[in-house]
Amino acid sequence: MALLNAAPPQTSAAPPEVDVPALTAVLDGRYAAVRDLVRTNLAEYADILVDAEELSIDDFRERVKDVVVEMAATGQTGMGFPEEYGGGGDIGASVAAFETLAYGDLSVLVKVGVQFGLFGGAVLQLGTKRHHDAYLADLVTGRLMGCFAMTESGHGSNVQALGTVATYDPAAQEFVITTTRDDARKDYIGNAAKHADVAVVFAQLEVGGTSQGVHAFVVPIRRDGRACPGVRIEDDGRKMGLNGVDNGRLWFDGVRVPRTALLNRFADVTPDGTYESRIENPNRRFFTMLGTLVQGRVCVGGAGINAAKVALAIAVKYADRRRQFEARSEDEEELLLDYGLHQRRLLPLVARTYALHFAQEVVAGQLHAVFSDTDTPDEEDDQARRELESRAAGTKALGTWHATRTIQECREACGGAGYLAVNRFAALKADSDIFTTFEGDNNVLLQLVAKGLLTDYASDFEDLDQLGMVRFVTGMAVETIVERTSVHKVLERVRDLLPGGDEGDSEAGLLDPDYHLAMLRFREEHLLAGVARRLKRGIDQGANPGEVFSTVQDHVVAAARAHVERLVLEAFVAKVAALPEDDNRVALTLLRDLFALSTIEADRAWFMEHGRLTVQRSKAISRAVGELCRRVRPIASDLVDAWAVPPEMLRSPELVG
Amino acid sequence: MALLNAAPPQTSAAPPEVDVPALTAVLDGRYAAVRDLVRTNLAEYADILVDAEELSIDDFRERVKDVVVEMAATGQTGMGFPEEYGGGGDIGASVAAFETLAYGDLSVLVKVGVQFGLFGGAVLQLGTKRHHDAYLADLVTGRLMGCFAMTESGHGSNVQALGTVATYDPAAQEFVITTTRDDARKDYIGNAAKHADVAVVFAQLEVGGTSQGVHAFVVPIRRDGRACPGVRIEDDGRKMGLNGVDNGRLWFDGVRVPRTALLNRFADVTPDGTYESRIENPNRRFFTMLGTLVQGRVCVGGAGINAAKVALAIAVKYADRRRQFEARSEDEEELLLDYGLHQRRLLPLVARTYALHFAQEVVAGQLHAVFSDTDTPDEEDDQARRELESRAAGTKALGTWHATRTIQECREACGGAGYLAVNRFAALKADSDIFTTFEGDNNVLLQLVAKGLLTDYASDFEDLDQLGMVRFVTGMAVETIVERTSVHKVLERVRDLLPGGDEGDSEAGLLDPDYHLAMLRFREEHLLAGVARRLKRGIDQGANPGEVFSTVQDHVVAAARAHVERLVLEAFVAKVAALPEDDNRVALTLLRDLFALSTIEADRAWFMEHGRLTVQRSKAISRAVGELCRRVRPIASDLVDAWAVPPEMLRSPELVG
Repeated sequence: MALLNAAPPQTSAAPPEVDVPALTAVLDGRYAAVRDLVRTNLAEYADILVDAEELSIDDFRERVKDVVVEMAATGQTGMGFPEEYGGGGDIGASVAAFETLAYGDLSVLVKVGVQFGLFGGAVLQLGTKRHHDAYLADLVTGRLMGCFAMTESGHGSNVQALGTVATYDPAAQEFVITTTRDDARKDYIGNAAKHADVAVVFAQLEVGGTSQGVHAFVVPIRRDGRACPGVRIEDDGRKMGLNGVDNGRLWFDGVRVPRTALLNRFADVTPDGTYESRIENPNRRFFTMLGTLVQGRVCVGGAGINAAKVALAIAVKYADRRRQFEARSEDEEELLLDYGLHQRRLLPLVARTYALHFAQEVVAGQLHAVFSDTDTPDEEDDQARRELESRAAGTKALGTWHATRTIQECREACGGAGYLAVNRFAALKADSDIFTTFEGDNNVLLQLVAKGLLTDYASDFEDLDQLGMVRFVTGMAVETIVERTSVHKVLERVRDLLPGGDEGDSEAGLLDPDYHLAMLRFREEHLLAGVARRLKRGIDQGANPGEVFSTVQDHVVAAARAHVERLVLEAFVAKVAALPEDDNRVALTLLRDLFALSTIEADRAWFMEHGRLTVQRSKAISRAVGELCRRVRPIASDLVDAWAVPPEMLRSPELVG
Repeated sequence: MALLNAAPPQTSAAPPEVDVPALTAVLDGRYAAVRDLVRTNLAEYADILVDAEELSIDDFRERVKDVVVEMAATGQTGMGFPEEYGGGGDIGASVAAFETLAYGDLSVLVKVGVQFGLFGGAVLQLGTKRHHDAYLADLVTGRLMGCFAMTESGHGSNVQALGTVATYDPAAQEFVITTTRDDARKDYIGNAAKHADVAVVFAQLEVGGTSQGVHAFVVPIRRDGRACPGVRIEDDGRKMGLNGVDNGRLWFDGVRVPRTALLNRFADVTPDGTYESRIENPNRRFFTMLGTLVQGRVCVGGAGINAAKVALAIAVKYADRRRQFEARSEDEEELLLDYGLHQRRLLPLVARTYALHFAQEVVAGQLHAVFSDTDTPDEEDDQARRELESRAAGTKALGTWHATRTIQECREACGGAGYLAVNRFAALKADSDIFTTFEGDNNVLLQLVAKGLLTDYASDFEDLDQLGMVRFVTGMAVETIVERTSVHKVLERVRDLLPGGDEGDSEAGLLDPDYHLAMLRFREEHLLAGVARRLKRGIDQGANPGEVFSTVQDHVVAAARAHVERLVLEAFVAKVAALPEDDNRVALTLLRDLFALSTIEADRAWFMEHGRLTVQRSKAISRAVGELCRRVRPIASDLVDAWAVPPEMLRSPELVG
């Protein structure tokens, strides 16, 4: 642009001088000390990255368990548990600690997630004092290892259709847990193959011949290294990655547990066999239970974003050292990062990583607020919880897809060297691959986000029927949504923000955050209204709702994605606006603009199709993205340094120097 | 579309009845017998897929070597060598065999590629009778293992800048091979760490104090398992995948080889130290030598396409069995493949795989024709060779990126099950990852393709300067290119093909292959002319050519990609046109249209920006893609079955049944 256009060469502006430690402080936020503790622990246990390659699976699993237990002793992994049980009593801190752990070996991360997040979180959130007293102190230290037995071979996304059954026997005052058919075996359960002594088992509760839906039970599965009577355990075997985590399968053949094994915060069974719950609607009860486990999604999203940072730190630093082909000079080959294509490949990913980081900060803050606010959820904060659940699902989906895409691009940008295990991408890629699937398949999560957007929270959410999400979407009252989305108002706002209107200067206002926000808001609301209209039309025509949904499904997912990207941009804009006016703010402003414009550019076809971009404006945006890449280039290494990934976690001695 | 639009429901047309064996015969083409031999061998050695997981790296490397040697005994790996040395004398057959091998363990594939393609190919193509007599018979059987020592740590893409030097010593009539600096060590060399006894070493030839550029030498590196004197060998260690191949590093410290070790087909040194070559221009000589090695790129492209088939076969068959969430019915959950989103994720990839398969058939046919035609390349078939090289580079880039993308999408589409090693994606993903880099980094290859398109073949190609590709592009006479690209004529053709013009029925002619071709041709020529104009403008303004190139680089790559996609579509269109009019042709026509329209859809922003799509037409194309997915859905399993991946190679017992 600078070179080939009539426009004045904006590159002549001197690049901002990034104060790297100060930028790290901005990124680390209120949990800087927690993050530094984890960085120190990661460096201390840096050998685990080599162990991951060199040990046998059995030995590596033991090593990972030991590291997890040792890290637990530093307080790092228990920050979210009440202080009376040895925890830190700070949910936000526990998310920060978990995210930062993603700079290191991801088997350690996931083992921590299984033990303290899934298993510990279920006991804490679904159980009551008797369960807390019985388990929390021991599980916080890792003395008691447990697992979270929800997913079955036959049902991952559709949890309400699980096949494991827990039948209440009033005579014995016990529940009888049974795997009713082969695809109802619990599967992919972390900690199950080797280390867990107890499991939180999700099963269809049957009381007096009536099914009450899915509930959770604490079930001993192993004693002294052997499966308990009636429990069959199988190893899931080798996986693409995360081989330090012992995933396994569980079958239950009439396993009896006492009545008190039911995690009874939301529902209970009296000794004589009466089912009781303060939440009457079974769907609402189910989703309330599940909703308390939202922290797992928040954590995985943050972990994905931080895994992407490791990859980008290596690739950007390499591109700032590696030379190939003479270009500007005959005497010296060119730095990879001075090639326009290389900038285009890496720098928008750096910008998106910053954007997602700040969006993650928002959702982690909401989690902290919601879960610190009160012990028992009441109607009052239902809306806050639903917003949190939606945002957690969306940030998890975008953050983990971003990780997959970024790690791949960075590996390719490091050429053959990127393929050697010592240079980190092998483990990063293999270990993080499953992030897009676990804690909710990303495509299913985005449909949940869309469902939330389409549903009138206050009235319809309680009346969800048993058919799951598909019916949620097709069964709702679409009129209200079309009403609610104020597309025309947004459209006016966009028009107002273009000086001279669409026919005017196609470069005007390109770097105005209000313009960026108006564009993303318009897209979101227009997509949403379009989905609602298409669903309504189909159903009005008497078509099978499932059929209608199938046809509209990619539109549904696009609407959800647009919603989440708008939230991400808002978080970035708000963050920058709150900073003092210094060079770091100038640097973050460049990144914010690069994120916003590359996001619009990626979907510019849609904006043109919907009258929000002229051809000239669309081309101007692409030029601006190239120009922003050139302006970010001189500070690229500083920007990745500010993430403060411990050098031991980058490894790659010949790539990053 | 059928459901929600006014248009008549095209889905009501009964799906074609696919004759799977007949479709396999179409796909296998003239080398059906060769492909079946490889399928049989793959099934015979199916245990290698398990060995890849269970054996130590050392043991697995030995096992892979043994399998390769045993397969060699069946004739499978030697088909491209002259019959007098025990080969099959059929280059096309050797490509077909190699491609098919990609259904299996990719370490075996790459070991075959290193031994017979790179090492054997270099001896065959760069050497003369004395080298053939000395080595071919032994290397065809695998008795003599060798390696191809081109890449150095410091130089992968920029081969002309290699740092290894071979100095001629007339007194001893020997070449002295030396690693002149540490980043000139040979690196990532397959077969080097363990198995190769000789290496074809690429080094800067110095004769009488003058550098003659890069030449190849046969150098013994190992005897009885030990490095030869002056040779240092280091293991590259664990890699992301392909751990059955022993990649390593080589340093040469004054290693002496006889004068006859120079592979002297294109240049020689007389005993008294006179350099001789019938190709005077050193750049032309270098690229002529390299050009003879084009088979490697053709083979890797085909391997990538076939690796994608394995992933798609698993994911499609799984989606045709797996149910999740009730949608159409309350009694039964829905098949994944009946969800619109799932169709959108997988079926355009099936279509693109078919398209690339037929494009690969064309390039393999060209390779066969060019290399079977004559023993020594002469001026006459230079043009054919350059077309071949360009097409090979482009198909390799698109085929291997397609593999990376497809394998990832398929893994995610199989959820948690896709993460278990037994279900194939782990190995497929890790092993194929490097395909986008080796045998030429894809982004560099596309720039080579663009260079070819921008260069007037007959005049400029010989005058390439030492600065490599960057200067090629910026240094050429751009006037001629702008002249040559007949954008306006193409534009008229596109207009003619739209009944009623752009303002007319936005659905008319959407399934007309002439329309598809005109669109892709227009895009290619417009992008190319644009690149030429931008380069010329920058240079006319006196800017540094390297700077200009950097700014235009993404445009250059887009032009090359557009060119290759046009070739791919042409191959698909021609293939379908030549088929008898039966249901298989109907099925392939659906896939052809799905490939063409999803390709246009993916770049619809560009088409709108350049006046080739109206908003209405663009939306109509997206609807048509969805509709085509629904029409392909009933035959999806047949379409992947027709690839005839041996069931043993799919593994995934619980996914594909």
